[in-house]
Amino acid sequence: MIKKILIANRGEIAVRVIRACREIGIATVAVYSEIDSDALHVQLADEAVCIGPASSRDSYLNIQNILSACVLTGADAVHPGFGFLSENSKFAKMCAECNIKFIGPNYDAIELMGNKAKAREIMKAADVPVVPGYEGKIEDENQALSIAKEIEFPVMIKAAAGGGGKGIRIAFNEEEFLSGYNTAKSEAKVNFGDDTIYIEKYIQHPKHIEIQIIGDEHGNVVHLGERDCSAQRKNQKVLEEAPSTVLTEETRNMMGEIAKRAAKAVNYNSVGTIEFLYESTGRFYFMEMNTRIQVEHPITEMVTGIDLIKEQISVADGNELSFSQDDIVLSGHSIECRINAEDPKANFRPCPGLIEAVNFPGGFGVRVDSAIYGGYKIPHCYDSMIAKLIVHGKTRNEAINKMKRALAEFAIEGVTTNIDFQYEILNSEEFVNGSYDTSFLTEKLVNR
Amino acid sequence: MIKKILIANRGEIAVRVIRACREIGIATVAVYSEIDSDALHVQLADEAVCIGPASSRDSYLNIQNILSACVLTGADAVHPGFGFLSENSKFAKMCAECNIKFIGPNYDAIELMGNKAKAREIMKAADVPVVPGYEGKIEDENQALSIAKEIEFPVMIKAAAGGGGKGIRIAFNEEEFLSGYNTAKSEAKVNFGDDTIYIEKYIQHPKHIEIQIIGDEHGNVVHLGERDCSAQRKNQKVLEEAPSTVLTEETRNMMGEIAKRAAKAVNYNSVGTIEFLYESTGRFYFMEMNTRIQVEHPITEMVTGIDLIKEQISVADGNELSFSQDDIVLSGHSIECRINAEDPKANFRPCPGLIEAVNFPGGFGVRVDSAIYGGYKIPHCYDSMIAKLIVHGKTRNEAINKMKRALAEFAIEGVTTNIDFQYEILNSEEFVNGSYDTSFLTEKLVNR
Repeated sequence: MIKKILIANRGEIAVRVIRACREIGIATVAVYSEIDSDALHVQLADEAVCIGPASSRDSYLNIQNILSACVLTGADAVHPGFGFLSENSKFAKMCAECNIKFIGPNYDAIELMGNKAKAREIMKAADVPVVPGYEGKIEDENQALSIAKEIEFPVMIKAAAGGGGKGIRIAFNEEEFLSGYNTAKSEAKVNFGDDTIYIEKYIQHPKHIEIQIIGDEHGNVVHLGERDCSAQRKNQKVLEEAPSTVLTEETRNMMGEIAKRAAKAVNYNSVGTIEFLYESTGRFYFMEMNTRIQVEHPITEMVTGIDLIKEQISVADGNELSFSQDDIVLSGHSIECRINAEDPKANFRPCPGLIEAVNFPGGFGVRVDSAIYGGYKIPHCYDSMIAKLIVHGKTRNEAINKMKRALAEFAIEGVTTNIDFQYEILNSEEFVNGSYDTSFLTEKLVNR
Repeated sequence: MIKKILIANRGEIAVRVIRACREIGIATVAVYSEIDSDALHVQLADEAVCIGPASSRDSYLNIQNILSACVLTGADAVHPGFGFLSENSKFAKMCAECNIKFIGPNYDAIELMGNKAKAREIMKAADVPVVPGYEGKIEDENQALSIAKEIEFPVMIKAAAGGGGKGIRIAFNEEEFLSGYNTAKSEAKVNFGDDTIYIEKYIQHPKHIEIQIIGDEHGNVVHLGERDCSAQRKNQKVLEEAPSTVLTEETRNMMGEIAKRAAKAVNYNSVGTIEFLYESTGRFYFMEMNTRIQVEHPITEMVTGIDLIKEQISVADGNELSFSQDDIVLSGHSIECRINAEDPKANFRPCPGLIEAVNFPGGFGVRVDSAIYGGYKIPHCYDSMIAKLIVHGKTRNEAINKMKRALAEFAIEGVTTNIDFQYEILNSEEFVNGSYDTSFLTEKLVNR
């Protein structure tokens, strides 16, 4: 039985894990970098060990120091949170070798899902829909065109060796395709020294819909419904909600079953998320699997009543899931706003610094997951997210109104935050009517 | 339709009502005494009107100034909160005369239930169990004894004109009764100049169990289960939980139906509470009805998912209840701790003063209803309750553990509070096993 957990993370997720441990009677060890000695997770844990200088590489990513801290404190398990080492299969493996329980899935699952090509292969084999594309070698323009026609327009033409948007063309018809194919090919040659081209279906204005799943080591896997994370800026989620406005009960069940199939394909035995691109046509495609707890897990907790961290610890300890699929009932509506210390008016430049005073919103259906306090100095070297504001209402409309009143009560003095920007999202027509997709924030609110 | 509500109260309940109004789009007017100009309810409301000096009598109880503030601001309704004018039928009547909606029951119900003797009469007529007692004139010792025997020992002998515990005797048998009767009679004569004696059943070690009900003006009344408020000190509730550990589903339904009968007897059309004394035998007796929202209403919200303030406003506006009895499902367990600025080590002396810093607990299942903030000065002239910490867990055990971890996170600097005392309650054997009754706190924790 797990008796003491070292939390290999910082910020609100470290606090979140410590809270769960306290409630189930497991001792906690915080680790911290030199700049984090006053952090809340350090104050709340039973023990705390400094693991290096401010730079993540030297502290929160420092496997050796973290494992030493485990040995030093007698921790028998490690919770990696999200980010940092949470999807590092080597770390998971080293924990196992040191006889320390890694609170996450088996390391093969982490490794397989961390490799885009392998993950796609496994998903195809498990009958999970992936974005249609041609993986073989393309000989010439004519073959390329017939591939495009088979996939159906619009298609995306991209450099296999590419990155950073270079060598990418979108084509809605034959004409666009032929010109795009040749441009992409020459751009690829120039930029990457390799003109190998990859063609896949272009998913237009998709929603980002993800399914929360959890499995145990006895082969049980349950899904806990979806989260709509389409409110993104530069692929960073800004606001999430559950359930999504666009899923019917039938589609939800179908996506849930597919997500479970995906998880079972890698003997998944922890909390995890299957991310899908969801087309307005109702078709959806596997994007990737996150083999860890996610930032936005609280909204699933709010609509299911299930504490995902406690359950994650329980299954890591070898227990069977405490519920079955039939026990999962989605109730009401939940929204999470990520509160970041950043300036939306200055291209979302991070704004670390001293929080002079803070007033958290409260009341019925309002949850704050945060690690800040009045007098806390946000360091410059980590993520700018300083709090998650989560609400739950009987209806989506109630949840929106509750979030608006909670944002209005949330006072943070000393640093600039995105609270007003979140308010704008909640007031936007696209968000209110639920039609927003992954390009909405950038097109409608950022680049006005 | 109600468009603007004046909240004739202060502190967390004023904030609670403002939050509900914000979420449903009703404008709010705060009223405040001169000493409360920096209070949170003043900051959060859309408008604020000063209604007099610090003394409650001159401000929060000043009917004329409050009604003037309504007229001045064009408020079409008044929410009285709890305490102050909330059970003042004259105020309710004056609101009606000024064409201002009083958000509470009809004033006849307030008046009838405010009179102990009348309430008892109405309850008896409605077949609601009351504490057995003899209400007629007692001629002599012999008649008294036969009354006591009929009621069954133990009985309480008390001066009809009494108060403050004077002239009260408890008798467990004939011998004790005869001596107690004569002592009580002479004490009554000496203390109150009236030796009229009243005999009633003595309820030994009762629990305080109350049923939350809500009615509308269309004759619908629904009960929302019970709250166990047995953790009291000097008749002041300190900690409450829902549901109670001692009620079976059958007893809960029975008490609920009786509470609805009590409410219907006075055409009850708002939120209200029927308080019962609950004997370990399972028998229970009507104690009184509170014709207003109560401090401890959040725990009922947590286990039912119903926002009582929003529903209270809705029925005041003439709407039918938005749910029926069959819709009420109790889910999980909730506990509320009243956080008071007081010193348990100095006979619970109030400790007003400057709050230098405050850190609210957060996370899953934790709710804070409060009106304090870092830098806020608690005035000396009002109630010492400064926050309500409310938790919800799947089980009672989870709720207890959650409350303990939340109390441990709750940091208030500058004033002494009862947070450690609350922690002691949660750790006590009687609380943990659920057997605690109304004398528990005083006997086991206060007078150690």
